[in-house]
Amino acid sequence: MAKTLSFPILILCLLTFSTSDASVQDFCVADLSLPEGPEGYPCKKKVTADDFAHGGLAAPGNTSNLIKAAVTPAFAAQFPGVNGLGLSIARLDLAPGGVIPMHTHPAGNELLVVTQGTICAGFISSANAVYLKTLSKGDIMVFPQGLLHYQLNVGKGEAQAFVSFSSQDPGLQILDFALFANDLPTDLVSATTFLDPAQIKKLKGVLGGTN
Amino acid sequence: MAKTLSFPILILCLLTFSTSDASVQDFCVADLSLPEGPEGYPCKKKVTADDFAHGGLAAPGNTSNLIKAAVTPAFAAQFPGVNGLGLSIARLDLAPGGVIPMHTHPAGNELLVVTQGTICAGFISSANAVYLKTLSKGDIMVFPQGLLHYQLNVGKGEAQAFVSFSSQDPGLQILDFALFANDLPTDLVSATTFLDPAQIKKLKGVLGGTN
Amino acid sequence: MAKTLSFPILILCLLTFSTSDASVQDFCVADLSLPEGPEGYPCKKKVTADDFAHGGLAAPGNTSNLIKAAVTPAFAAQFPGVNGLGLSIARLDLAPGGVIPMHTHPAGNELLVVTQGTICAGFISSANAVYLKTLSKGDIMVFPQGLLHYQLNVGKGEAQAFVSFSSQDPGLQILDFALFANDLPTDLVSATTFLDPAQIKKLKGVLGGTN
Amino acid sequence: MAKTLSFPILILCLLTFSTSDASVQDFCVADLSLPEGPEGYPCKKKVTADDFAHGGLAAPGNTSNLIKAAVTPAFAAQFPGVNGLGLSIARLDLAPGGVIPMHTHPAGNELLVVTQGTICAGFISSANAVYLKTLSKGDIMVFPQGLLHYQLNVGKGEAQAFVSFSSQDPGLQILDFALFANDLPTDLVSATTFLDPAQIKKLKGVLGGTN
Amino acid sequence: MAKTLSFPILILCLLTFSTSDASVQDFCVADLSLPEGPEGYPCKKKVTADDFAHGGLAAPGNTSNLIKAAVTPAFAAQFPGVNGLGLSIARLDLAPGGVIPMHTHPAGNELLVVTQGTICAGFISSANAVYLKTLSKGDIMVFPQGLLHYQLNVGKGEAQAFVSFSSQDPGLQILDFALFANDLPTDLVSATTFLDPAQIKKLKGVLGGTN
Amino acid sequence: MAKTLSFPILILCLLTFSTSDASVQDFCVADLSLPEGPEGYPCKKKVTADDFAHGGLAAPGNTSNLIKAAVTPAFAAQFPGVNGLGLSIARLDLAPGGVIPMHTHPAGNELLVVTQGTICAGFISSANAVYLKTLSKGDIMVFPQGLLHYQLNVGKGEAQAFVSFSSQDPGLQILDFALFANDLPTDLVSATTFLDPAQIKKLKGVLGGTN
Repeated sequence: MAKTLSFPILILCLLTFSTSDASVQDFCVADLSLPEGPEGYPCKKKVTADDFAHGGLAAPGNTSNLIKAAVTPAFAAQFPGVNGLGLSIARLDLAPGGVIPMHTHPAGNELLVVTQGTICAGFISSANAVYLKTLSKGDIMVFPQGLLHYQLNVGKGEAQAFVSFSSQDPGLQILDFALFANDLPTDLVSATTFLDPAQIKKLKGVLGGTN
Repeated sequence: MAKTLSFPILILCLLTFSTSDASVQDFCVADLSLPEGPEGYPCKKKVTADDFAHGGLAAPGNTSNLIKAAVTPAFAAQFPGVNGLGLSIARLDLAPGGVIPMHTHPAGNELLVVTQGTICAGFISSANAVYLKTLSKGDIMVFPQGLLHYQLNVGKGEAQAFVSFSSQDPGLQILDFALFANDLPTDLVSATTFLDPAQIKKLKGVLGGTN
Repeated sequence: MAKTLSFPILILCLLTFSTSDASVQDFCVADLSLPEGPEGYPCKKKVTADDFAHGGLAAPGNTSNLIKAAVTPAFAAQFPGVNGLGLSIARLDLAPGGVIPMHTHPAGNELLVVTQGTICAGFISSANAVYLKTLSKGDIMVFPQGLLHYQLNVGKGEAQAFVSFSSQDPGLQILDFALFANDLPTDLVSATTFLDPAQIKKLKGVLGGTN
Repeated sequence: MAKTLSFPILILCLLTFSTSDASVQDFCVADLSLPEGPEGYPCKKKVTADDFAHGGLAAPGNTSNLIKAAVTPAFAAQFPGVNGLGLSIARLDLAPGGVIPMHTHPAGNELLVVTQGTICAGFISSANAVYLKTLSKGDIMVFPQGLLHYQLNVGKGEAQAFVSFSSQDPGLQILDFALFANDLPTDLVSATTFLDPAQIKKLKGVLGGTN
Repeated sequence: MAKTLSFPILILCLLTFSTSDASVQDFCVADLSLPEGPEGYPCKKKVTADDFAHGGLAAPGNTSNLIKAAVTPAFAAQFPGVNGLGLSIARLDLAPGGVIPMHTHPAGNELLVVTQGTICAGFISSANAVYLKTLSKGDIMVFPQGLLHYQLNVGKGEAQAFVSFSSQDPGLQILDFALFANDLPTDLVSATTFLDPAQIKKLKGVLGGTN
Repeated sequence: MAKTLSFPILILCLLTFSTSDASVQDFCVADLSLPEGPEGYPCKKKVTADDFAHGGLAAPGNTSNLIKAAVTPAFAAQFPGVNGLGLSIARLDLAPGGVIPMHTHPAGNELLVVTQGTICAGFISSANAVYLKTLSKGDIMVFPQGLLHYQLNVGKGEAQAFVSFSSQDPGLQILDFALFANDLPTDLVSATTFLDPAQIKKLKGVLGGTN
């Protein structure tokens, strides 16, 4: 058949083409050894299937701590395959009574899906309105970028969730650590939050903050 | 204490401010009754906590079909809360032997997390390179925007996954449906895919395509 | 001269062209009467020079309150001319000892320029590092999106500054109001911030919060 | 064959799915009757193949004018199919000696391909550097956003080119029309351009400007 | 005249200014020797007019192959001047009966302008709707990002077109090459496309695929 | 109290977490020693508070020149802290009668706030419409990207303003310098602007242009 006969020519033609295709940027797996730019890391030259998958969220995080909870991120630094994709994920594990304390993601919207247990989650808007939901397995909820929010295990057993972000590097600012786990002077914290100095010193003491 | 005494004044001042805050656009829950624009739907005027959560992914999709699989999306049309957030999600259910056939998302990168079973997934790059991985519970994998990919349940039991997207409306083009489930003439399909007319007619017959 | 003689033809030609130019979208002054979308308000049909200027920041804000400070925003809602421009501004007035308390802008980077007095400003990063500077007249400082920051008048007289944002609607979440000026239950605040209930109730009382 | 037998079930399953697919936003053909937003027009509800094609550039523009040239745009206002695509095109026709005078596109980069004749084109950077090229049929050249540039037919016959833009609405500001074809007072033009009032008045007279 | 006398001062002042202007990034011609990032290549330090023009599309591609067609891209890798501009172009040559087979551009919208002959073009939406048009010289058509489409020369002579993209690197995934020109196992292709193994093996044989 | 006792565990847990936080990209202070990319400079590895503040706008620019005005920019090249923030600023100083001559910012919208004196400012749209305002201290005005505009001191004393931009590198093309301060031949300027050669030569002479 003529069609079949002509195929070898097609192959030559297209193989050549395919070579220049090799330079097409379908993806940009991070080369973490190079300096990051505003939009992420430079791209790794040679990639394999392993660059696009990540096993780091398979095991539960350690919840033997006060908050009885753990956040395991797969952002660009942990999973270079998300670099340039505007997308990342983290795993939340909450023991009974566990809490992911009040926090924000400065650079990304969040979408949570509960995969085990019952979670009470909420966020607070710029207008100081509170949006609270109790979520069961399979339920999803969004938390808009930069707004204070939390997740609380309100069930009897372990709770687990995956949270996706609209950024490869959404950031995470935990309120207590921002205020009390550094050397920001107590007076300055008090003057800018109206918290009592005694309260600040107490939490600073606990979280290792100074001044 | 002087501080406490002055607070009422602060309240008045800031409550006024808080009122103009009400117009700040922290989020933009879709008003699906209004015409969509290039960046999504206009924002709903009044929102409650229910607008930010969605229960539609809690139940498994029906896998009693040939592909033994189901995709349940929570894009802007199903979950108006993701409108404007550059983020959405879908649930995949695959019975044993089930497959999400070769497809693309024209408008979004994808991040899959396996929540049950074992999935063999793969994508093909512009350079025709194939990236395949077998993923277990808790493993994640990315599929860059617009590239052909598939997911296959290669375990013995049910498989389940959640797939997040870097778009509130990533689209979904299933290869077989694009080629065989419409009125695109067999000759045209053959001329543009090099598939044999008999093969095309067979699949058109099965999928309800005409011409 | 031939050139001059031909000009009338040019005019006709280009006036026609100029008419279709009228539809070019150089700007998109907000029509606040129409529903907002994810990228801002629909554009006003007829505009005048007044739509591009705004006098609302000319007068100082009222600093006769506890924080001895005022924020006067010119976001899209106050100044429709910035709609679609990815840019807005606000005026800060701080009486001696005044403070813009710890807050974030969920949707925009900030660039401050001091126009009067001496301001101590600082922000805290996701890594809990503190960046503090004392700024005099003419000094500028940036505050990256979504990070907690504050401004404090540390001079003897009035202080004044203008803050620009990389968004027409950067949002403003004041920490104390988010935590204490709504109906978020004291127990929930305590569980998610580790603040003592007494401290929470005290500030709720002052700021009009309930529960 | 089992496979074939099961297909009808697949069809039912997927047809249902396909219905919800109908809401996926693959494109957003402009509904020009609705108010434009910062990112373009709302999307037309029902589209046909005609919405994605445009015949308006098939005929040459009228070059019987002083500049001996014509620009025929296919921006969103003329070709609603480009709405939301970040892409548009225009046709340039230049009679011998014709010129597209010094102009800018405030909102888009430009890529020119010469399809007939010989064109001398150039642009000037922010650093006042001049980049000039003489282009023949099939040659391409880029003109970065917002920079002054021009195209001049330096061949003996007609010249023709297509110019693509990285915006559905790149805008077009022709220098002479901006300065001389409106009511901007001569004194103001002189004070802000250092052109002699006589020169300004001469061109205002020709181009229909006043004051 | 005083004005003229003061000009030399102006020059000194502004030349200084112009020097700092030199750092302004009007454009970012790719330095292909440096690692690419998510948004393209780092910028070349010294540029000349030659960096902004490209002659590689002036000659027709070789259509002596099965598809009787050729695609000649001027993406960032071939034409570094488009780097960072969100814009690129390619030339299509189709001999009589030639076809650009079913393909997608994963990362860019496409705008085609026919410059010679008659082309039948079509694309298929996520909703499996088919949009077909027969285009003559000067006609334009858009193909939204990531959707399957093709171009077919349906005239008697050669056909030629230029296709612009809303990306400096839109990618190109040709369906037949993605499925049949690599080592993706026949069984896997069959399981994920429902094509008969014989059909797959036939095309794999022709296109050099294995397994 | 049990809560307090458990805190040390929390610290250990979170300190570990905080370490991986260190890689979060809250900001991207420019490392000016590395090659710039399309979105700005690579990020400096170690930053201090000094990287986020800049004193370069505190002193007035030198207005002892013909235009009796000075522009002092704080773009990424002068103030590396704005890199990646989509925001920058400049200071304008205008002596009595001073003018910032007709110019454009190719890559950014502008928002001006008058901090001293009285300024007449204006811009011209793509439709050649003129928008003029006289602005006093505290008044603000926007100038959309890429459009010709100017600022003129129309008061009796010094005028001063700060102009913010929606880009870390908005560019600045001063019309007179683009046309007359380089080697663009007089004939070419005349052919593309319709200015008289004598006028061009006069300004070229003054501004140091050649040809």
